[in-house]
Amino acid sequence: MSTTVSKSSVGMLSTKQTSPVLIAGTWQASDASGGFQVSNPNTGEPIEEVFPISKWSDCERVLSAATEAFHALQRMPATRRADFLEALAKRFESAKDALVAKANEETGLAIAPRLSDVELPRTTNQLRQAAAAARSGSWAMATIDTKLNIRSVYESLGPICVFGPNNFPFAFSGVAGGDFAAAIAAGNPVIGKASSSHPGTTRLLAEQVLAAMQETNMPMGLVQLLYRTSHDDGLRMVSDHRVGATGYTGSRVGGLRLKAAADAAGKPFYAELSSVNPVVILPGALAERYFKVVEDYAGSGLMGVGQFCTSPGLVLLVDSDVGRAFVAEIAGRYEKAPAGTLLSKAVQSSLTSGIETLRSAGAKVLVGGQAIDGPRCAVANTLLQATGEQFLIDPTRFQTEAFGNAALMVLCRDLNQLHEVLKSLEGNLTGCIYSATDGRDDADYEALALTLSTKVGRLLNDKMPTGVAVSPAMNHGGPYPATSHPGFTAVGIPASMLRFAKLTCFDAVRSSRLPALLQDANPTGTTWRSIDGQWTQGNVG
Amino acid sequence: MSTTVSKSSVGMLSTKQTSPVLIAGTWQASDASGGFQVSNPNTGEPIEEVFPISKWSDCERVLSAATEAFHALQRMPATRRADFLEALAKRFESAKDALVAKANEETGLAIAPRLSDVELPRTTNQLRQAAAAARSGSWAMATIDTKLNIRSVYESLGPICVFGPNNFPFAFSGVAGGDFAAAIAAGNPVIGKASSSHPGTTRLLAEQVLAAMQETNMPMGLVQLLYRTSHDDGLRMVSDHRVGATGYTGSRVGGLRLKAAADAAGKPFYAELSSVNPVVILPGALAERYFKVVEDYAGSGLMGVGQFCTSPGLVLLVDSDVGRAFVAEIAGRYEKAPAGTLLSKAVQSSLTSGIETLRSAGAKVLVGGQAIDGPRCAVANTLLQATGEQFLIDPTRFQTEAFGNAALMVLCRDLNQLHEVLKSLEGNLTGCIYSATDGRDDADYEALALTLSTKVGRLLNDKMPTGVAVSPAMNHGGPYPATSHPGFTAVGIPASMLRFAKLTCFDAVRSSRLPALLQDANPTGTTWRSIDGQWTQGNVG
Repeated sequence: MSTTVSKSSVGMLSTKQTSPVLIAGTWQASDASGGFQVSNPNTGEPIEEVFPISKWSDCERVLSAATEAFHALQRMPATRRADFLEALAKRFESAKDALVAKANEETGLAIAPRLSDVELPRTTNQLRQAAAAARSGSWAMATIDTKLNIRSVYESLGPICVFGPNNFPFAFSGVAGGDFAAAIAAGNPVIGKASSSHPGTTRLLAEQVLAAMQETNMPMGLVQLLYRTSHDDGLRMVSDHRVGATGYTGSRVGGLRLKAAADAAGKPFYAELSSVNPVVILPGALAERYFKVVEDYAGSGLMGVGQFCTSPGLVLLVDSDVGRAFVAEIAGRYEKAPAGTLLSKAVQSSLTSGIETLRSAGAKVLVGGQAIDGPRCAVANTLLQATGEQFLIDPTRFQTEAFGNAALMVLCRDLNQLHEVLKSLEGNLTGCIYSATDGRDDADYEALALTLSTKVGRLLNDKMPTGVAVSPAMNHGGPYPATSHPGFTAVGIPASMLRFAKLTCFDAVRSSRLPALLQDANPTGTTWRSIDGQWTQGNVG
Repeated sequence: MSTTVSKSSVGMLSTKQTSPVLIAGTWQASDASGGFQVSNPNTGEPIEEVFPISKWSDCERVLSAATEAFHALQRMPATRRADFLEALAKRFESAKDALVAKANEETGLAIAPRLSDVELPRTTNQLRQAAAAARSGSWAMATIDTKLNIRSVYESLGPICVFGPNNFPFAFSGVAGGDFAAAIAAGNPVIGKASSSHPGTTRLLAEQVLAAMQETNMPMGLVQLLYRTSHDDGLRMVSDHRVGATGYTGSRVGGLRLKAAADAAGKPFYAELSSVNPVVILPGALAERYFKVVEDYAGSGLMGVGQFCTSPGLVLLVDSDVGRAFVAEIAGRYEKAPAGTLLSKAVQSSLTSGIETLRSAGAKVLVGGQAIDGPRCAVANTLLQATGEQFLIDPTRFQTEAFGNAALMVLCRDLNQLHEVLKSLEGNLTGCIYSATDGRDDADYEALALTLSTKVGRLLNDKMPTGVAVSPAMNHGGPYPATSHPGFTAVGIPASMLRFAKLTCFDAVRSSRLPALLQDANPTGTTWRSIDGQWTQGNVG
C-alpha cells in the first residue's frame, strides 16, 4: 500500500550530524552506519535534518529496554496504560500546529482539512478508544468455566515492533497510530520504526510520547524510536526472541522479506501489504443512477491522491454503451482534475512503474500515464482500460497495485466473464458492488458477492471503500496478500488489540493468584466476560 | 509432540494392491507412487492392509472436490453441518467395537479404559459440542455498529487440511478429531491426512464419515481422506491457493517444513509441535505434602506411556535433601512400574534418540535409558537428572522433547537459579507450579509464575498438565515452538473454530443481503452478538 524507501539517502555521515534516537527514555546519539534526509514533495527542496541509520547495537539497547518495560507493565494495572494513552492524546492536540506543519512539509498532505481536521483527530480518537478498551478489559475476552475452574484470557505478548507507512504520518505512525495504540492498550511496549518518508514528524510525535511517559510515570522502555536500520538488522529485529510480534504497514516486497524472517522464528507478523480494492458496477446501477455512481467513484479514486490502502484501483463493468460512457466520463474528470502532490519521489516512481506494468500487460492508457516534470512529486491522473479477456490472460500483472492517482477499468464481455475475473483475484482489503435498488441486479449480486466476500476483508454495497471508520465492527484486513492473516483487523478497537496478545489459560490456579480479569468479582463492574458460555458483566456465582 | 513417520514402508507396490482413498464421496483407487504397511506395536507383527502413497493427481482431485464443497457449504445454513456432526457422533458410537479393536491393533493403546471409555467418548463429545456451536452461531462473534451500519462476523475460510498425530487415533484424527470438528463447524470442508501410524483406524472412521455425509445429504467433497503423499506434495498442498488453512499436530521437523511452505503462500498454518511442559515444585509444597506431589507426578508422568503432548517431561526443583529424596522416589517408582507399549518403532527410536541427546548434554540416567529388546515397541521407564547449572549451559539440548515414558529432573542450586532456568525456556503448552498452601511459597510463586506465564499456553497450580478438558476456557496452545501462534487453541469449543475462519466486514450492505448472523433479528433468538459494544442475545433496535 505504500513504500518505505527513503526519498534521498545521504550515505555515510558521522554520528554527530544525525538526530538522536529515543532509547530507554532518553534521546541519545545513535550508533549509526549513516544517515538520510528527506525532501519536501511539493518543492523538491531537501529538508535539513539528517536522521540516523542505526546499527544493531541500537537495536540491542532498544530490545533490552523494551523487555524490561514489558516486565514492568505486567505488574501494572491496565488503568496505567490508559492514563498514558489519554495523556498522549491531549499532548498531540496541544502540539497540533507544529505536528501538522512538519507533516505537511514532509508528506505534501494538506494541513487542512486532511492533517489537522481529519488525521490528527482520528489519531487522538484511536488513542482514547484504546485507553477506554484497556480500562474496560472486555477486549481480553475473559472466559471462565466455573465447573472445571479453568479460566482463560488474552494477555500482553511482549515488545511489539511497529513499522509505520508513508501515507498516514499520524494515524498509522509507529509511535502514535493504530497499531501503536492497540499494542500499548494490550499491555505491550512498542518499538517504533519511523517511515523513512516523514522522520521529522515521527520525531515530533515521539517527543510528545516521551513527555506523556514521564507525566504518567511509565517504564522508560515503553515506547522507543529508531528511524532506520539495515535490511538485515530489520530481519533480525522482527525475529528476535524478545519480540512478541510485529505490526507492519508498507511495501509488499519489504513486508514479505520481514514476514519470512518472523515466520521462521515463530513470531506473529501482521502485515498490511497491498490491495487494488475491486469495485464492481452492475448494469442496473448504471442504468438507475449513473451520475451518482460517477460522483462516488470520481470522489473516491482521487481522494488523497489515491494514496490510501483502500483506494479503488480496479473497476469491473460490463462492456456496453453505458459502461463505456462511464469510463469516458471518469477519464474526462481525471483529465480535468489537478494532479495532487504525491508523498515522495519514491511513490512517484513506484506509481509510474506500476502504470508501466499494467500497460505492458496490455492495458490502454486513457489519460495520464506519465510523471509530471519538475521538482514536485506528481504523476498525471491516470486511467487505464482493459478487457475482461485481457485480464484473464494475465491476472497477476493486471492486479499490480499502482499506488497513487491511477486506476484500471476492466470492461467485461458479460457478467459471466466478470465473475471469472472476480474468481481470479488475489486477497484484497475491500470489495464493492454497486447494484440497482429495484431488484434487477439481485440474482447477479448474490453469485458475485459470494465469490467476492471470500476475497476481501470488507464488502461494501453502493459505497466506495475509502474512509475506514474506527468502529468495533470494522475489518481493515483481508486474505493474503492484502494482509498476512485473514482473521485479524488493523483498524477497529478492541479487535485490533488481539493481534498483540497471547491466550493464557489458568487451570486450577488459586483465586488470589488469578489476573484481575479472571477473579470471581467482576474487576470493573462492567467488564464483559464469558462465564459458562454466557456473556455477562456480572460476577462469578 | 509425536511423529508421523510410518512404521514400515514397503516401497513401490502396484496401485491395485493398496486400499482406496476417499475422494469426492467415493472410495476410489489412489494414483499411488507406492504403499506402506504398519505393524502391531504389541507384537511387532505386520498388519496385512497396504495403504497408498498418493501422487499429486490424487491431491488435485481432492482440492477440486473440496473447493466445490466449500461453495456449496457457503449456501447452506449452519444447522446442516451441525446435523452432519451429530449423525457422525452417533455412527462412531455404533461402530465403537470395530474402531477400538483396530485402534488397539495399530497403536497398542488399551481398549479399556483408554480407547473405548475415554478417547472415543471425548471424540463424540467434541463433535456434539462443535455441532452445538455451529447451531448457536455465537462462535462467530457477530459485531454490529448500528450507527455506522458496519457489521462483521467470522465466516468460513475454505478447505482445511488436517494432519492428525500418531498419539490420538480418534480425538485428534484428521477425519474425526478436534481440528476436524472445528473446521467443519466453522463451515469448511476437510482434507484429512491420516497419521501413518494408524491408517486402518482412519479408514474405519472415514467410512462412518462418508455414511454420515450421505445420511445428511452433504456435498461429497465435505470430508476426504488421503493416507500419505510425498513430502513435496505435502508442501504443495498446504500452500495451494484453494486451501484455506491447515491444522497440524505432529513432529516438529515435519511441521516446520510444512509451515514454511504455508507461510510463504500466506496460508494460516496452525501447528502443535512439541512441548516439555515444565513442572516447578517449590520447597514449601514438598515440605507440606511430599507424598501427594509424588503421587501426582508418578501418575501423570507415565500416563499413556508419556505419549501426551502435555506430558510433564521437565521437573524443576531446588537441590535439597527433600528434593533429592523426591527424585529418588520417582526413580524407584519408574523402575518398578511396567514399561508400557509405545505407539510404534518410530516413537521408540525417537524416544531413545531424545534420551541420548539429553545424556550427551550431561544428564545422568537414574533409571531406564534403553529400548526393551524384542518385537514389542517399548523403552524402559526413564528418569534423567541434571543440575540447574548444566541446564543453563545448554538450554537448547536440555529442552529436547523425549516423547514417551522419560523425564528430566533438574536440581537447581536455589530459586534464583530455578528462575533463570525458567527464563531460558522456549514456548510450551503447559507449565505447572506446586507450592505450599500456607503462604510460605507465595512471594517466590509470584515472580516465577509471571515468567512462566509468558512461556506457556496454560498455567496450572498443584495439578499435573495431562488431561486437557474440552472446555470453552481451555487453551491447548502456547508460544512457539509449542505451537505456531500464541493466540489460538486447538482444544476448546468455540475458540478452536476461530483458527479456521476469516473476519468479514459488511459495510453498508443492504439488510436482506447480510448473513443471517448479522441481520437485525437475532437468527436463533439466543445467539450472542456484540451490538454497539454490548454483548446481547437480543435483536438490533
